Amino acid sequence: MNPIRRGPPLTLAPDGLSRRRILVGAAGLAGAAVAETAAADSLADVPARGPGAALSDRSERSEFVHLARVPESTPGRRHIDAAEAINSKAPLDKLVGTITPADLHYERSHSGTPEIDPAKHRLLVHGMVKTELVFNMNDILSMPSTSRVAFLECTGNGWENWKEAPPDVTVQNTHGLISTNEWTGVPLSFLIDLVGVERNSTWMLAEGGDGSAVARSIPLTDEIVAEGMLAFGQNGEPLRPAHGFPLRLFLPGFEGNLNIKWLRRLKFGDRPFMTRWETARYTQLQADGRARQFQLKQEVNSVITAPSGMMTIHPGYNRITGLAWSGNGCIVRVEVSTDGAKTWKDAQINLPALPKSQTRFQIDWNWDGIPTKLVSRSTDEKGNVQPDRATFIAMTGTNALFHYNAQQTWAIGADGVVRNVLA
Amino acid sequence: MNPIRRGPPLTLAPDGLSRRRILVGAAGLAGAAVAETAAADSLADVPARGPGAALSDRSERSEFVHLARVPESTPGRRHIDAAEAINSKAPLDKLVGTITPADLHYERSHSGTPEIDPAKHRLLVHGMVKTELVFNMNDILSMPSTSRVAFLECTGNGWENWKEAPPDVTVQNTHGLISTNEWTGVPLSFLIDLVGVERNSTWMLAEGGDGSAVARSIPLTDEIVAEGMLAFGQNGEPLRPAHGFPLRLFLPGFEGNLNIKWLRRLKFGDRPFMTRWETARYTQLQADGRARQFQLKQEVNSVITAPSGMMTIHPGYNRITGLAWSGNGCIVRVEVSTDGAKTWKDAQINLPALPKSQTRFQIDWNWDGIPTKLVSRSTDEKGNVQPDRATFIAMTGTNALFHYNAQQTWAIGADGVVRNVLA
Repeated sequence: MNPIRRGPPLTLAPDGLSRRRILVGAAGLAGAAVAETAAADSLADVPARGPGAALSDRSERSEFVHLARVPESTPGRRHIDAAEAINSKAPLDKLVGTITPADLHYERSHSGTPEIDPAKHRLLVHGMVKTELVFNMNDILSMPSTSRVAFLECTGNGWENWKEAPPDVTVQNTHGLISTNEWTGVPLSFLIDLVGVERNSTWMLAEGGDGSAVARSIPLTDEIVAEGMLAFGQNGEPLRPAHGFPLRLFLPGFEGNLNIKWLRRLKFGDRPFMTRWETARYTQLQADGRARQFQLKQEVNSVITAPSGMMTIHPGYNRITGLAWSGNGCIVRVEVSTDGAKTWKDAQINLPALPKSQTRFQIDWNWDGIPTKLVSRSTDEKGNVQPDRATFIAMTGTNALFHYNAQQTWAIGADGVVRNVLA
Repeated sequence: MNPIRRGPPLTLAPDGLSRRRILVGAAGLAGAAVAETAAADSLADVPARGPGAALSDRSERSEFVHLARVPESTPGRRHIDAAEAINSKAPLDKLVGTITPADLHYERSHSGTPEIDPAKHRLLVHGMVKTELVFNMNDILSMPSTSRVAFLECTGNGWENWKEAPPDVTVQNTHGLISTNEWTGVPLSFLIDLVGVERNSTWMLAEGGDGSAVARSIPLTDEIVAEGMLAFGQNGEPLRPAHGFPLRLFLPGFEGNLNIKWLRRLKFGDRPFMTRWETARYTQLQADGRARQFQLKQEVNSVITAPSGMMTIHPGYNRITGLAWSGNGCIVRVEVSTDGAKTWKDAQINLPALPKSQTRFQIDWNWDGIPTKLVSRSTDEKGNVQPDRATFIAMTGTNALFHYNAQQTWAIGADGVVRNVLA
């Protein structure tokens, strides 16, 4: 089952109007609409129940639930072989709440997914430290650990809409490079104390154990030292190979590629290490042709996940829901426009709105059947407001590929089909 | 990999003592111990890395990770066929953090697991209401929803230790009937407003759609009305069939069997409905031979998950970790004894300690190799302290089967093997 599938048109039951009068005060627009369809329903079709399947050692998904990521390549290259894929996007349109199941957490890798024997894995810590050390996984698992629910987002999330807007895409295609898990690991601050990082060390090189040995320079800001962790768990279990098993760096709020998977080396220094990943790959080409380095924090963002791309809705009551997030902390406000950004209403934010986590929002809406556009706009605790696309492009130009956080607009046609548009 | 597997004995590297002197101040006992093994390690055995597996539509577990529940029957009936099982326990000894993966969430059912087509599922709401209504799943999914991380616990959790203590069991056997998920659903208060429950209705009958139609009477306390939900999601995805797909009741902090799975009926009334489940099944036989009905709230509890039953530890540094929880709200304190409850130390509680959720605790320990006993004792925000077994049995006798929350004692032998004992 798709949990946010739109129902059939809401039809008025014979006594729907009087019932509506009774109920609308207490349960609002949604209550009135649902009571109308519910009154027309019956128990006639409910099958009798017999003994169910035996208990098992794992609870699998229902045969009626179809959840999968979509492997894709660079912008506009969809429907490709998995072997060609460079990322695999999470089905935001079919998820509920805020957590992403571990098997559906988005993937982005440069040399595929290595299968690492944890007994043979090592982490070398060296550079400007009192003591160079090589840790095995038993060492790591003997250290104090902490857990935190937080999002991880590929810096390329949203790149589909940088230059043009393919109309026939889903929110999985446009925004599926973000996920939220409970991460468990050793505080980076503990490791820094343990190896005795020198006082004047201001950068850390993190290197992954995949074939291409992705390596990034990470500034040792107070925020990163306080919140970073060497993660070995996600959603209560050991990391899955695609997400860095047995060990990855996790830096809440910072672009995905810094959260080095299959972590095998940390080197401390007093300047950035200038790897090819921060010269050839993860630099941001500005409108004037110059490139910007080290734009590391993920910005305030949001997207309506239902109704969203390629869904079909019907006139009448429709619940609007979506996700908002910011690398700067908590989401404090989400506004929704149902008239193409002319007027805005505050959506309900589901609490608790955790810092640096996806936050669910929702709002009632009655569609009158006239073509229109839906937009969401989020604000974080630091006062950052998600920009509209025109403002965003005026700031950044269209040469860039990363850190796209402009408001997402979904157009709804007279046929009720939802399509991706630029504004 | 078992993430909490104990490592080999900690051996002192040639220069271990001097390194220990450098590091112990900053990183404490764990840091000193780990630095000693780390100094003896090298990168010699790390295999070279080539291209990894292609990206996929789901991230499976590592071939080195073995996670499964164990299906069991009534107390003492282990190692049985799945067809005979009445519950299936979560592997607490192998989990990290606080969330339980959905496929490892414990199961307890009376007629196995039905596979329900959500298009044919209906929820009848009737009794003392203004409007009797039949809802389909599209109705439910159109309503406002909320999400909350909370534990669910079978009221029989711990029953292994009511009368005797089988020595050769794991913490999965003794305490595996508890799990924590992010639950998403419609607030019960919304449904109550929608159908217009009468003011003098004080109880609600909830009936499941499995073969045995489990049905329980639920008091409409302020707490249950405010916190209850009609859940359709767990950990970000639709419920799995074993956990009630497509719809279950979820009442944070209340015994598992009230959280009716495959929910098909809610009837409102002004007294309990006295189903067979609250006369023949879920009553608590007291020491004096009388039975207690409606003991519904899960008590303050805790258990050390490592070291725990059937693990082997070695003299020297060992990290102690475990889980604590209470149906009354947040865990505010966990104490650990490493000398059989003679002396106690405060363990570190991992934050945030969410209300009615499993809370992770941990503490450093150096084992001197002499046989001893490990015990944990939790305190909740209402001031409830987990009782020792003698006090608990003095209060409740040994006729009962449910709501066992006495302190768990793990005995460690001279051989380092951890075994279950009564105190």
